[in-house]
Amino acid sequence: MPYPHFKELRPAYGFDDVAIAPGRITVNPEMTDISMDIEGVRLEIPFLASAMDAVVSPSFAAKMGQLGGVAVLNLDGLQTRYEDPEQVYMEIAETPQDKATEFLQKVYTAPVKEELVGRRVKQIKDGGVTCAVSLVPANTKRVAPIAVEAGADLIFVQSTVTTARHVSKSARGLIFSELRQNIKKPIVVGNTVSFDVTLELMEQGVSAILIGVGPGAACTSREVLGIGVPQVTATVDCAAARDEYYRRTGRYVPIITDGGLRTGGDVCKAIVAGADGVMLGTPFAQSEEAPGRGYNWGMATPHDSLPRGTRIKVGTKGTLKQILYGPSHRTDGTENLVGALRVSMGMVGAMNLREMQQADMIIAPSIKTEGKIFQLRGLGS
Amino acid sequence: MPYPHFKELRPAYGFDDVAIAPGRITVNPEMTDISMDIEGVRLEIPFLASAMDAVVSPSFAAKMGQLGGVAVLNLDGLQTRYEDPEQVYMEIAETPQDKATEFLQKVYTAPVKEELVGRRVKQIKDGGVTCAVSLVPANTKRVAPIAVEAGADLIFVQSTVTTARHVSKSARGLIFSELRQNIKKPIVVGNTVSFDVTLELMEQGVSAILIGVGPGAACTSREVLGIGVPQVTATVDCAAARDEYYRRTGRYVPIITDGGLRTGGDVCKAIVAGADGVMLGTPFAQSEEAPGRGYNWGMATPHDSLPRGTRIKVGTKGTLKQILYGPSHRTDGTENLVGALRVSMGMVGAMNLREMQQADMIIAPSIKTEGKIFQLRGLGS
Amino acid sequence: MPYPHFKELRPAYGFDDVAIAPGRITVNPEMTDISMDIEGVRLEIPFLASAMDAVVSPSFAAKMGQLGGVAVLNLDGLQTRYEDPEQVYMEIAETPQDKATEFLQKVYTAPVKEELVGRRVKQIKDGGVTCAVSLVPANTKRVAPIAVEAGADLIFVQSTVTTARHVSKSARGLIFSELRQNIKKPIVVGNTVSFDVTLELMEQGVSAILIGVGPGAACTSREVLGIGVPQVTATVDCAAARDEYYRRTGRYVPIITDGGLRTGGDVCKAIVAGADGVMLGTPFAQSEEAPGRGYNWGMATPHDSLPRGTRIKVGTKGTLKQILYGPSHRTDGTENLVGALRVSMGMVGAMNLREMQQADMIIAPSIKTEGKIFQLRGLGS
Amino acid sequence: MPYPHFKELRPAYGFDDVAIAPGRITVNPEMTDISMDIEGVRLEIPFLASAMDAVVSPSFAAKMGQLGGVAVLNLDGLQTRYEDPEQVYMEIAETPQDKATEFLQKVYTAPVKEELVGRRVKQIKDGGVTCAVSLVPANTKRVAPIAVEAGADLIFVQSTVTTARHVSKSARGLIFSELRQNIKKPIVVGNTVSFDVTLELMEQGVSAILIGVGPGAACTSREVLGIGVPQVTATVDCAAARDEYYRRTGRYVPIITDGGLRTGGDVCKAIVAGADGVMLGTPFAQSEEAPGRGYNWGMATPHDSLPRGTRIKVGTKGTLKQILYGPSHRTDGTENLVGALRVSMGMVGAMNLREMQQADMIIAPSIKTEGKIFQLRGLGS
Repeated sequence: MPYPHFKELRPAYGFDDVAIAPGRITVNPEMTDISMDIEGVRLEIPFLASAMDAVVSPSFAAKMGQLGGVAVLNLDGLQTRYEDPEQVYMEIAETPQDKATEFLQKVYTAPVKEELVGRRVKQIKDGGVTCAVSLVPANTKRVAPIAVEAGADLIFVQSTVTTARHVSKSARGLIFSELRQNIKKPIVVGNTVSFDVTLELMEQGVSAILIGVGPGAACTSREVLGIGVPQVTATVDCAAARDEYYRRTGRYVPIITDGGLRTGGDVCKAIVAGADGVMLGTPFAQSEEAPGRGYNWGMATPHDSLPRGTRIKVGTKGTLKQILYGPSHRTDGTENLVGALRVSMGMVGAMNLREMQQADMIIAPSIKTEGKIFQLRGLGS
Repeated sequence: MPYPHFKELRPAYGFDDVAIAPGRITVNPEMTDISMDIEGVRLEIPFLASAMDAVVSPSFAAKMGQLGGVAVLNLDGLQTRYEDPEQVYMEIAETPQDKATEFLQKVYTAPVKEELVGRRVKQIKDGGVTCAVSLVPANTKRVAPIAVEAGADLIFVQSTVTTARHVSKSARGLIFSELRQNIKKPIVVGNTVSFDVTLELMEQGVSAILIGVGPGAACTSREVLGIGVPQVTATVDCAAARDEYYRRTGRYVPIITDGGLRTGGDVCKAIVAGADGVMLGTPFAQSEEAPGRGYNWGMATPHDSLPRGTRIKVGTKGTLKQILYGPSHRTDGTENLVGALRVSMGMVGAMNLREMQQADMIIAPSIKTEGKIFQLRGLGS
Repeated sequence: MPYPHFKELRPAYGFDDVAIAPGRITVNPEMTDISMDIEGVRLEIPFLASAMDAVVSPSFAAKMGQLGGVAVLNLDGLQTRYEDPEQVYMEIAETPQDKATEFLQKVYTAPVKEELVGRRVKQIKDGGVTCAVSLVPANTKRVAPIAVEAGADLIFVQSTVTTARHVSKSARGLIFSELRQNIKKPIVVGNTVSFDVTLELMEQGVSAILIGVGPGAACTSREVLGIGVPQVTATVDCAAARDEYYRRTGRYVPIITDGGLRTGGDVCKAIVAGADGVMLGTPFAQSEEAPGRGYNWGMATPHDSLPRGTRIKVGTKGTLKQILYGPSHRTDGTENLVGALRVSMGMVGAMNLREMQQADMIIAPSIKTEGKIFQLRGLGS
Repeated sequence: MPYPHFKELRPAYGFDDVAIAPGRITVNPEMTDISMDIEGVRLEIPFLASAMDAVVSPSFAAKMGQLGGVAVLNLDGLQTRYEDPEQVYMEIAETPQDKATEFLQKVYTAPVKEELVGRRVKQIKDGGVTCAVSLVPANTKRVAPIAVEAGADLIFVQSTVTTARHVSKSARGLIFSELRQNIKKPIVVGNTVSFDVTLELMEQGVSAILIGVGPGAACTSREVLGIGVPQVTATVDCAAARDEYYRRTGRYVPIITDGGLRTGGDVCKAIVAGADGVMLGTPFAQSEEAPGRGYNWGMATPHDSLPRGTRIKVGTKGTLKQILYGPSHRTDGTENLVGALRVSMGMVGAMNLREMQQADMIIAPSIKTEGKIFQLRGLGS
């Protein structure tokens, strides 16, 4: 009699579960190269701003580009539904908390206007920066050409869970290999968390992949749908697929850890886990330049009878420049994210992100120990 | 000298310890089939309401049946002890908290009246739905025939821990294989949590098995008796027994995870762990149709000198239809349980529950991370 | 070049980390035999009360004996230092909290009076029960014969950590094998937590062994000295030594899990981990019969410059009979400890403690999940 | 096709994750030898005070030396920037909390005055004790000879992460093997946490090594940079390197666990993990002799755009003598650290620190269990 089959469960880890171990040599942080490349589009810093309405407006995107990163504009949101989105943002911020969900649901019933797509893209390009835009799969074929025509440099196609194949009676799924024929710009797709899907998407020719589904224990999709993979494990798995695909084909397709990153430490851990770049939402929603005016709102799933649009007060911490480059007045790691990454690479002895990906990582139980403070080293040096 | 024997401890997992990983394809949620079958009795949705007095009355059962599931009426409780149970429910709800246990103990001293058994069954059947009733083992032989005679379609025989054999001086235990001869209706028994007992119960011919003993860390039976197995591990183990029994005999005996489920995410995880259906108590006690009027009460063990009947305020969240089918106004996963299951199956790429059982599950430490919010995907799509 | 040696760390588990799995059969709780035997001294129930001054007085010991267990009187404490200890207990209870440690330190400077040893033993024997007394190793040779002469039935020799050999310049350690020659009564020693020491102590002829050093994470000895082993692992290890010793010699030396037990669930888990009996302090300090008047106090180490005597308010829960036999009005498992053990054995299918030791135990992460309640089974049956 | 490569994560443990298991024999604490030796410089007790400005002044160092340990004076801090540092300490203590960081940043802009280096060293030597001083790598070559000339006995070279090689365009890194030629005093370097780096530093001839980078989960470097290794694992790994180096060369280079130690239990665990000595900051900042007046401040990294100098109120607990030798009035393990170490060694059966390093250590989940108290053993003995 064969032994009965029990389902096996694999442990998975998030940012709070791990820490980076220092390396065998140290490097001067100023010598580190932290640029990344998406099929020829170069980013001086590996930071992307999420395609969330409360985070990215055309003017925010221009600022982000000038600072070396890139912000992705949501082409299915307020910017393409309203001539004057500023007015809508103001009303969202002024709605009392108990009316916020209802109001959010209402403002998103306005239809997307195709003529606004080109206008928003041009506004970003006027800032002299790389223009990245995001679409849901269902709108991509129709709207992406308009965006490219207007000058968009990077097309993001995003849904909560992306796979190489979608089964549906009503509609034929988006085939990325076909899309690549029609759109002559790099296409970034996501989100996924698994080795297999990452490999399949790369085989379809995509230019980069976003990693992250239900990353935090507090995520709505974890609570409501039970689905989610902590980001360190998701990134480790997908990085293995990227390396395997590179080994087979010689084409290097970067992966971008998207979601759940809050501090400089989280950014560093994502890279060490294997990411080539990171995408952040709330940390940038906290910048003075973000259109959300101290709020952020999200939706875990586009299913009609599940709730959409919880508005959360995130506050405003400082300018985008301060959040990226400091100087930092806080010790919680939410400012000077670029400086933190460079200093961390210095301690690990990594000259660039590829070397940083090779650093050692440990599982360190996240027991918060009150009353301990870190000890002084070279104060005043 | 042989090596001394140390007792081995096996790790076990509950809903909060795990998460579901998305699959390789995605499926349109509307295409998913979530029906289940208990020996020919078909449920459109795999949801059962627990045989708790605060949850199921005849009218609740009718409503639940009309919505596609089934509610199990407790034939050892208030409904068969009182001509007019509504009056008793009202008094329970009006008793001050510090008198509640005492009052509950008193109302349950009234004897079960056999003439009420048939009347309650008929009330449910009048709703045009499947009628399921529950009995403790000691009353089953005597009362089950009355219920069947009155039209009951499913007989549940439940005790905290059920095994194929009970040792007692005073009474011969209930033998399920004998019961099956006498009662010509499907018999669902529980609860159990182990591979061995599941296999033995299936060999005795039962129609379905309830899984769950002391599932949560806060369970009374865990605190008082030390006994309990977290539901994910219990379901995984018993599902292995079901599959093994099916492999040997070709008879498929569904298992139902019972207890400790609170959110849509928990429901999805139970299915992925291997369940064919789920039984919920408190979430349904929170419906407007529940007889408990915003309260629930339970008892971990029928032993006379251990406490019985702690009344807990659970509140009222909405109609049963809203809890099952939405629309949801909450993001905590306690509404639209059916929608959550279908959307989750869509992300996993499962067309039916058997495919959902094959999905990957990971161990994800339940560290609640404050201040993180899930990122926007396709808002307004 | 040989591989360098890294110290290995073994995982250890406490009561809150584990749970008992139900068995393949169930047994009527009334049929269970829970007696234990210490070299011919029979206890109807495997419960011992700790030799703590706030727990055991002669009258408490009489009551405990009448209820089937045994309480151990501390012969190095207030009972043998004061003619009228009642007066001292009253003063301790009346001292304000901020003066309590100082006052406790003062009352324990009074010398032990040998004439009180015999008097206390006789007071217990007058209750018609087994008399158990406790001594520190340094006083054992001198005082134990007096106690035995007065009628003591069981001699406990206790220190925080007991081994078969103590190295000291100033004094020759107590040799248990010699003690056994001189004292013709069963000798119970402790505490220990390891396989090796348990085996060595058994080889020296002791009658039973107390298990437990720094059992809880909050223990003073864990905080101050870093020393401590969670009780489930300690009991599993020492039970393996007991079984090994029995296999070699045919002599069965019971082990008693001492410390850290709070609920009926903890008691059940100690037995399943391998214990033959359990020793409790605080739960009995909460009885009306305890001399501590709702307080308990302890000392982790007898070293002069470490703190001694922190007084803790434990409250009074009910009579000793209620704590042991119920009826229980609480659902936290702190009442009806005997009933809980019998019901748990029934669910596990164990007829006696030896069978209970064979039950399965799982590691179940102790994540407290609020808002879950245990489901009703057979209420009113 | 070769199996794809997934990054592996190794579990790591901190003080709160582990406990010491008692040994097979016990030893009278007074017989224990707890001295340590750094290349001929003997410490009666293995306690070092961190080179933090709020902890060590010349008078504190004298006191610490008289009590048997050694305190390390920071030569890059207030003591060498100000003629009258007392005045600065007073102003720091009087600055309101919201101005503290800014004020700290300001006082550290004053330049280091070389003439003060010799003066501070002489002040310590005037106390008749071993003089230890600390420098950042960049200042070591220049300032260390001045300190040695003035009489310093031990030179500490410290940065957050120290390796045998530092890559920089602007400056050639400090080569410890060269430094050893020039400075005829023992050189202690740190901090590191890995086997490899420990071995390489020992091969460069250093006299002792400080272990610890981002030890606690709450450390700034963990939060900001993602870098950190819990101290038990760091110590275990570096101790393996020390033993390996000793095996190869016969030279024994002690390692000192530095940072994250708070209680006597932490000190004991560090030794059992393999340390030869321990370095503490905050516990000594809480002494009456510390110059910080109940405050401590630190800086995780010397990078210019990351925050420096968070001032934390640590309070004053008692004299340095009380903290080291008791008597203790607290049960939280923060007083009588020396007594705790000796008593713990007694229970483990270790006559000296090398034997203590061999003790067993277990992983004991740090679940804080309220309401449990440790049981009385031999109170009044």
